[in-house]
Parts: sequence; C-alpha cells; structure tokens
Amino acid sequence: MTETFGFRVLATDGLARRGEVSMPRGKIRTPAFMPVGTGGTVKTMYMDQVRALGSDIILGNTYHLMLRPGAERVARLGGLHHFSRWPHPILTDSGGFQVMSLAKLRKLDEKGVTFRSHIDGAAYEMSPERSIEIQGLLGSDIQMQLDECIALPGEEKDIERAMELSLRWAERCKAAFGDQPGRAMFGIVQGGDKARLRERSATALSELGLKGYAVGGLAVGEPQAVMLDMLEATCPELPADKPRYLMGVGTPDDILKSVARGIDMFDCVMPTRAGRHGLAYTRRGKVNLRNARHADDPRPLDEESDCPASRDYSRAYLHHLVRSQEALGAMLLTWNNLAYYQRLMQDIRAAIEAGELAERSALISEGWARGDLPPV
Amino acid sequence: MTETFGFRVLATDGLARRGEVSMPRGKIRTPAFMPVGTGGTVKTMYMDQVRALGSDIILGNTYHLMLRPGAERVARLGGLHHFSRWPHPILTDSGGFQVMSLAKLRKLDEKGVTFRSHIDGAAYEMSPERSIEIQGLLGSDIQMQLDECIALPGEEKDIERAMELSLRWAERCKAAFGDQPGRAMFGIVQGGDKARLRERSATALSELGLKGYAVGGLAVGEPQAVMLDMLEATCPELPADKPRYLMGVGTPDDILKSVARGIDMFDCVMPTRAGRHGLAYTRRGKVNLRNARHADDPRPLDEESDCPASRDYSRAYLHHLVRSQEALGAMLLTWNNLAYYQRLMQDIRAAIEAGELAERSALISEGWARGDLPPV
Repeated sequence: MTETFGFRVLATDGLARRGEVSMPRGKIRTPAFMPVGTGGTVKTMYMDQVRALGSDIILGNTYHLMLRPGAERVARLGGLHHFSRWPHPILTDSGGFQVMSLAKLRKLDEKGVTFRSHIDGAAYEMSPERSIEIQGLLGSDIQMQLDECIALPGEEKDIERAMELSLRWAERCKAAFGDQPGRAMFGIVQGGDKARLRERSATALSELGLKGYAVGGLAVGEPQAVMLDMLEATCPELPADKPRYLMGVGTPDDILKSVARGIDMFDCVMPTRAGRHGLAYTRRGKVNLRNARHADDPRPLDEESDCPASRDYSRAYLHHLVRSQEALGAMLLTWNNLAYYQRLMQDIRAAIEAGELAERSALISEGWARGDLPPV
Repeated sequence: MTETFGFRVLATDGLARRGEVSMPRGKIRTPAFMPVGTGGTVKTMYMDQVRALGSDIILGNTYHLMLRPGAERVARLGGLHHFSRWPHPILTDSGGFQVMSLAKLRKLDEKGVTFRSHIDGAAYEMSPERSIEIQGLLGSDIQMQLDECIALPGEEKDIERAMELSLRWAERCKAAFGDQPGRAMFGIVQGGDKARLRERSATALSELGLKGYAVGGLAVGEPQAVMLDMLEATCPELPADKPRYLMGVGTPDDILKSVARGIDMFDCVMPTRAGRHGLAYTRRGKVNLRNARHADDPRPLDEESDCPASRDYSRAYLHHLVRSQEALGAMLLTWNNLAYYQRLMQDIRAAIEAGELAERSALISEGWARGDLPPV
C-alpha cells in the first residue's frame, strides 16, 4: 500500500483514461463511480454489499455530517471510516453545494457562508478553512475545496463572480489543508455554461498544483450537450497527470460520454435514489417496477447479472414490494442499481484497456435503446 | 425429510416441551419463534439473514397477501415460498384477525365475513372454506382455521358466542382442508379471559383430532397474568402429542412464561416492529437507541453476540441512523432483534433439554432486570 496520495494513467483511448488513484487506505480503479453515502450510510445498503459490488471509494456529504452527528463527534468516535464501517477511501464534498440547496437563511460573502440547519435551525459558519477542518475531522481521504455553485441558467456576471470567488477560496483551502501526503484536496472548476470562464477557472486552478481537479456546477439543469461542451473546454486545461472528477454526474449515458472526454471519477445519487422510487437501471435501460406490466412477470431484472438482486428475484415480487412500500423493495433495487453502475464502470475500464471504448459504448447504448424485455 | 406432517416431543421439563415439528419442507425445532413476514417479506430483512439466525419457519398474513398481490396471483407465480424466496416452512394465519383489525365495513355472520380492503376499498368475502382455499393457493405448510377473536375486556356472552362460532368454523375448515398429509390445519382455542370457555373450546377442538392447536385471542390488551391463567386452563385440555401455538405472543418474558406452561410455537411483530422504531432487544433488556445517551457511545449493543448487527456497530452509529431515519437503522435493529429472539429460543430449547428451564429463565430475567450498560 502506498503512503502518499498518487495517480497514474495506465492506458488511454482517445481522451479517455484508464487510471489508478492510490493512497494509504487503498486504490481506486478509474474511471470510478463513487456511491453516495450522504449521512454515513449508502441508503438501504450494508457496506459489505457496497464493497462487494466493486466500489473502491464512497462519498460522504460534509453538510449532512456536520449537522448530524457533527464533525467533532465523528472525530471522537474514530473518524468516518470507523464510524460507518467503511475502511476504504472516502471522498467528502465541501458542504458548500448543499448549504446552497438545503440550508436556510444563507448569507455568503468573501469570508465564507453563514446558514441555519434545515434540521433544527441552528446557526453555522462555513469558511474555506472550516470546511477543510471539518473534512479533516471526518478523516476524509479526498477533500474538496469550498466553492460557490451558480444554478443554470444564470447571468454571466454572477457566474464569473462566483468562479473568481471559488478560485480565491481554492487558495485558502490549499493553505488550510497544508501538507498531508496520504490525503488530497481537490480544486473545483466553476464557470457555469461559459467556456471562457471554464477555461479561466481550469487554468488558474492548475497553477495551484493541486493533487486533483473536480468539475463542479454541471448537471444542475442544463442540457447534456452543454455539459459535454463544458467538459471539452475544461479537460484540456487540466494537468494530464492528475485525476479529474465530475461532481454529481450522472446517468449511465452521461458517464459514458464524460469518460470519453477525459473524466476519471463520478458520484451521483441516481442509482440509490432511483432504487427508493421503484426504478431499476439495467442493460436494457431504466425499468419502472411500479408499472402493472410486471405484476405477473416471473422473470428477474437480468438473468445474466451476478448480483442476487438483479438475478434471483422475480419482477412480480419486486413490483409487489414497491407497490407495498416494503423496505426490501428499496434494498433490492438500490443493490441492483449500484451493481449496474459498478458493472458499467468495469466494462468502461476494460474497454479503454482494449482501446475499444467507442465501439463498446455504442453497443451499451444500443442495449438501452432496444429497451426492456417484451411482456410475458 | 419426512413426507407427512408430524410432531414429537423430544424432552420435557415440567410442562415445557422440547419438540420437533416435521414436514416435507423441513423441521421446526420447538419451542420456536416465527418471524412475521406479513406481505411476503420479513420487513427490512433479506430471507438469507432470517434463515441464518436460526429461523425454521416464518409466518405469512393471509389478509395482506390476499389483498396484495392476491392469492391466485401468488399461486400462478409458484406459491409463496418461491415468490418470496423462502423455501422452508411457512405458517399462515386465517386472515380473520386482520379483517377485524384492519378492514373496513366488516359484516360477520354464520357464513363468514364480508369486508372492504383497507387499501382500495374493494369488496371481499371470507368464509372458513375460502380462507383455507386462499392458504392453499399461497402454499402454506401450516394453515389456521378462520376464527372470531373478541377484544378484551369483553362481555362473556359475546366471547362465548364467538368461541362457539369459531368451533363450528373449525369443523368447516377441517372439511375444506381435507387430507393433505404433508401439511397441517390448526384449530384455534378461543374463550377470551374466561377459563370455563377456554376449557370448553380446547376440549371440543381436541375432539376434532387436528394436527395442531393454536391459542388465539390473547395478548389483545389483557394483563400478562390473565394470559398465563388462560394458558393454564387451556394447555392441559389439549392433546400432549400435538404442537401448541400461542398466536401473536409476545415479549421475551411472555415467551419464557408461556413455554413453562406448555406452549411450543410463537409469532410476534415485536422484534421487527420495534426494530423500525429504534428499539433493541438485548440480554440487558430493551434499549431505546433514540436516547441521547447513546450519541457518543462507541460500544456495540452486545459485544458477545455473534450477530454482526449486535456486535460490530457502535451505539453512536445506531443512534445516528435512528435519529436520521436512515433505512440502515431499521435494518440493523431488526436484525439485532430477530437475532436476540432466536438466540433466546435456542437457550430455551437447551435449557429444557438440560432440565434447567426454571433456573435459566431466572438468570435471563435477572439480566433484563439489571438493565443496560452504564453510560460511558
């Protein structure tokens, strides 16, 4: 096991990279999908299951954890890895995005952001330095700078102001993080849907010499084509020898297309959230188990999967569980969905190694387009 | 594996019996606790976990399953064992108790009961014959007669009328069930809190020569002493060579005291329901994980347990999950609770074999009375 945080590219296929992030807690095979473990749990899953699906790293949400159970408490209890029984790498966001989307009475200035908890109204201050301190208390292996993310569509001058503020905060986060050889602090490229601003952000961040770079402020309502354009403007400006993480993305199709543009890491609530809403991701596309056509269908979601949730339970049973709002329905569909996502990442990694990403991506997309099994 | 349903007593200790129910689908070590799998799922649990805890049989609720997904549908899908992926013995109730407690616009007469679904208002008829038909469609190994259960306290004349009606329905259920060597139909002793009526019911049912006998209409609000008095009036009137099932009971203490009075089988929603409400059953009594005293407690629920949920997760983490209403909290506490119940049954069986039930029951009760660990 390596003692310092590092990244190497093992193979490329066009702009796509097959790589490996290494750190004392383990290795991350990239392109990687990070299941979201918001409040110290990947919802409805046992950590053993998450790991067995091939997850090398999970994401924790700083905003949620700082409010409940509290960062200092998690530190006293031995850190987030020990607390949540996930001894492998953890990435935490900065908390900023969810302060903006969930907290009440937000006030943002150069110094940072003040807000009130959406749970109990308690007042908090979050500066770039405090965000890094909290992520350190949690024990996060990959920490994110505090940034300001503007909803799209937005005014160019607002986007630019937020991007420039985020750059200044990146410097402060870098200083606060200091020298921690086994961990990393990633900067976040902002700039909304303006290529000029994205390029400026990526170039300036690169000059800071960080250990990794995230692309933030995308998948916030804009069309996929805009997101891909922004990746095309951003990735060439980022150093080739550092990992690139596209925050909060996305659908399986988003992932295929972003990998082809040079992204190495992803996180998204879609597979877990969809699992709690009766939706299954499969190689035949998205399947809505609430639909009455499954009520008498003895077939599993995917008879060829090696995930028990996908292979061993009938659609009729899953339909019944979803309709009855049984916890097991959410448990099985989340399991299926994370299995599907991790299988997709495995296929993507193998395709890059074989130099066949475009061909295999086309086959995968054809599978989705053909759609689900015909009714029994 | 036996081809016919049978029961034998392997050891006794006072009135307590260590026995074995056998049938084509497997053996049930008695005294046995049956986890409740209301709608084809033991809530928040994978069936593999339920089995691994030492559950030989689970219970399915006819009322819930007939409404959703429907008995005929379950039959078409291969029966409840296949549908829910539990290939071991299943006992179903008759549906009558939940018609009375959940359904709308109930009307009961000699013929049976008509009601409307609490889910969608659809009209149903349930006769003794239809209840047995439904249980057969589900594929139930141990089926229960339709009975009428009176809430306590109640008027003696109402209790007597319902008990006599239940006796007549027992005969009709026996005729409807017919000759099914590998399965059983149990009669249900009624009679409320009146020893005279309990004796009459038990004696008359015994004359029907059924394969097993349940005691119903208890744990419906009466004091524990009344329930135990009724067991003392009932059990001696039941044939010694047939299993005795106390329906819907109960707390660990209820189980200890009922075993000592000759009961062989139990079912109860307590361990599963409590697990969804932040409550843990332990050898130190019931622990409420919502309580703030657990917030910083790094200790597990029970470091000596062999159940991962009890042994490997800190109280602080469980407290956090419960407070955050995370599904994993209910998953882990239900797992802990069923593990505790099944461990209790294992200890009871071993105690009867050793002729030490009274002594070991006293030790178990002392553990509960000492209470939980002192705060950290």
